Amino acid sequence: MTTLTGELLHPSITDPEMDSMRLLSETALRFPDALSFSSGAPYDGNHDLANLSYYTDRYIKHLRDKGVPEARISRLLFQYGPVNGLIQDDVALMLRQDEGIDVAPEAVMITHGFQEAALVALRGLFTSPRDVLLSVSPAYVGIRGAARMLDIPIRGVPEGPDGLDPDAVAAAARAVRAEGGRPTALYLVPDFNNPSGTVLPLDARRRLLEIAEEEDLFVLEDNPYGLFAREGETMPTLKSLDTRGRVLYLGSFAKSAFPGARLGYLVADQEVTDASGTVRTLAQTLSKAKAMYSVGSSTLSQAVIGGYLAEHRHDLRSATRELAAVYLERLDATLAALARHFPPGGDHGVSWNTPRGGFFLVLKVPFTADLAAMERSARDHGVSWAPMTMFHLDGGGRREIRLGFSNLAPEAIDEGIARLARFIADTPRETPRSAPRETTGDTV
Amino acid sequence: MTTLTGELLHPSITDPEMDSMRLLSETALRFPDALSFSSGAPYDGNHDLANLSYYTDRYIKHLRDKGVPEARISRLLFQYGPVNGLIQDDVALMLRQDEGIDVAPEAVMITHGFQEAALVALRGLFTSPRDVLLSVSPAYVGIRGAARMLDIPIRGVPEGPDGLDPDAVAAAARAVRAEGGRPTALYLVPDFNNPSGTVLPLDARRRLLEIAEEEDLFVLEDNPYGLFAREGETMPTLKSLDTRGRVLYLGSFAKSAFPGARLGYLVADQEVTDASGTVRTLAQTLSKAKAMYSVGSSTLSQAVIGGYLAEHRHDLRSATRELAAVYLERLDATLAALARHFPPGGDHGVSWNTPRGGFFLVLKVPFTADLAAMERSARDHGVSWAPMTMFHLDGGGRREIRLGFSNLAPEAIDEGIARLARFIADTPRETPRSAPRETTGDTV
Repeated sequence: MTTLTGELLHPSITDPEMDSMRLLSETALRFPDALSFSSGAPYDGNHDLANLSYYTDRYIKHLRDKGVPEARISRLLFQYGPVNGLIQDDVALMLRQDEGIDVAPEAVMITHGFQEAALVALRGLFTSPRDVLLSVSPAYVGIRGAARMLDIPIRGVPEGPDGLDPDAVAAAARAVRAEGGRPTALYLVPDFNNPSGTVLPLDARRRLLEIAEEEDLFVLEDNPYGLFAREGETMPTLKSLDTRGRVLYLGSFAKSAFPGARLGYLVADQEVTDASGTVRTLAQTLSKAKAMYSVGSSTLSQAVIGGYLAEHRHDLRSATRELAAVYLERLDATLAALARHFPPGGDHGVSWNTPRGGFFLVLKVPFTADLAAMERSARDHGVSWAPMTMFHLDGGGRREIRLGFSNLAPEAIDEGIARLARFIADTPRETPRSAPRETTGDTV
Repeated sequence: MTTLTGELLHPSITDPEMDSMRLLSETALRFPDALSFSSGAPYDGNHDLANLSYYTDRYIKHLRDKGVPEARISRLLFQYGPVNGLIQDDVALMLRQDEGIDVAPEAVMITHGFQEAALVALRGLFTSPRDVLLSVSPAYVGIRGAARMLDIPIRGVPEGPDGLDPDAVAAAARAVRAEGGRPTALYLVPDFNNPSGTVLPLDARRRLLEIAEEEDLFVLEDNPYGLFAREGETMPTLKSLDTRGRVLYLGSFAKSAFPGARLGYLVADQEVTDASGTVRTLAQTLSKAKAMYSVGSSTLSQAVIGGYLAEHRHDLRSATRELAAVYLERLDATLAALARHFPPGGDHGVSWNTPRGGFFLVLKVPFTADLAAMERSARDHGVSWAPMTMFHLDGGGRREIRLGFSNLAPEAIDEGIARLARFIADTPRETPRSAPRETTGDTV
């Protein structure tokens, strides 16, 4: 048997930086009794296994109701099908109702989740080693991973309490250019960023679109959590404000339906003229990349999600009102427990932000919050979390932890924060001087 | 609205060479009445839409029968699950019965079809721009596409009537090294290659594994058609003969079950030692790449395929006997119709190979068989096919066409070959001198 060492494999597989997610979940798995704030898994809910075959059959009925002939339905579900998918019209209807995004089905590509949508978009738009991806920092690890898979350099733009500052984006684009690179696209989550929970204000959204035009940037808008805003606090997506075709919108059904389906979509309505003068949408043009990743997306996943959309008249915002209430209750429970255990004015050295929604918040602690600290927390105090260094693109976050509360019931949150308070009380404080400086911090 | 030109996109999206598949299917779509030998789609069969929910529920029963607790089954199907999949044990059972491949479930990764398995393997094994993929030529277009997506250079090794000559592989590896490259892996389909239908003899299989060891090559063995050999003619897979851990085996359920599930797998039982000294299988190590492509594979697809495997006691070779007979009948019908229309000794200038199985055969014709010729054939004579130039990696195949017979009933094959004979008779012959030389031929 051949034995290989990791060094023989591509760095996207072996870099410790890329390994942090696995190390995190392995550490969590070694302490199964620990209450876990370390993941961003959605609420397990009261899923009924019978729903899987129910929604499959519901989608078949949906096609029959639309008058699709039986033999065609069979071919659509069993055969190689259209690369860009079967349910683009259903997703377009949903986007119009839920997000005010008005695009033709031809501007939609159905993908195997956010990751494939991101890889397809990056593969299409990044053409030379000079091309640089700008990204909000801290950022979801999946975008960094996608860029690394394609050897695309990524440059973090640090966000503030209100998300990305558009002028900081412009400055980063100019800095990349000054170094001989081409800033090609900007990645961000305007609504409840993972990990920070920030929301970009409306005026910053408009300004960001102007900057994108001025600096010739595409914008990759990732929106997994926007559906779960409080009533009356829903913000317009960048895509719905985009009059100049700058935004590619990346969506997922992992949180609005369930993760197992591995279904997401890319909205790219920009027009592309090919060498023969034919005009197609960017989504249609990128089908060549989609074909090389996985040909079409699973027809079974598309049937279940298509059935779910049809059942709810393509109105997921209404269909997920109860679910949104669950997440908001968990956020509120986390904030309330934190306030009880770390009262204002106390000598605990702990502070946190107060997002209005999403799955996460960030806690500042008076010591280095690395994987070794997380292991002590899980082993000795029965509570796990994620080091913020995992999400920072340019160092930083060494004394911060991400708390993901989406998959914990309020009672578990109360107990988990109590355990966390004991862990923090038990951990020797470092004075700022003894800690490495934020800006030079290694990521885990 | 932004209008882009194709030149702004990555060459894997816009190169005419990569566009041939789309042009081919568009041409075929423009002439819907033409009988199509141009695709490799499997037999449409007598698929029953009710089977989709049946097999989903069958898999749930399979898990219950194994004693998996109800809450765990629900989490496996609805939540984010294990990146490498849910049904590796089922696939390992199948591989032992069907192919004599004896690996642990930990050596199996479930993927979104062959394409994702190939991308994961290529991403892991190819670490520097010097690394070169050797491939049988002519080859399935998907492997070329996967390599192009990752900017991996690919070098064709021409095959003969009995597939790849192992010594030609050794010579190609040495030639790459002499040019300063690193020959990293070899791609081939040992059983019924697409497009040529060749089968690698047993002694060449053994020799190829020795060459892989001598030249330090991994072997990517792609086996979509091996299940459909004639009784008594099944050949051992390279993986089952591999004692030195040289082979990564890539499988797909597109032909053994149905393409819509978009489900395949990668077998990689090589041991990898990481920086901390932990030993994992290569399949486990590559889960980092799989996570970045699409996290896990669709649980719905895994449930349907897992249910199908359980229903057939993991013995797909027996389960597909009738299907194999369908394909062999179609191959025989194609060969018989060709013999009728192009009798031996006739002045037709047409010849073909006689594969023992698979979905394809290759016809030599006395004129340039490019997309323009295919369009004339479809428009004026009602029959479509694929130019062989699409599959050659280093030019060649200009006067050859691929006939895919897997999705045509015998009567349609008879009629299609009659139409093809009229098209060929109607097309002016080119003398070899007037045609461009094979070795300099542009691909379509």
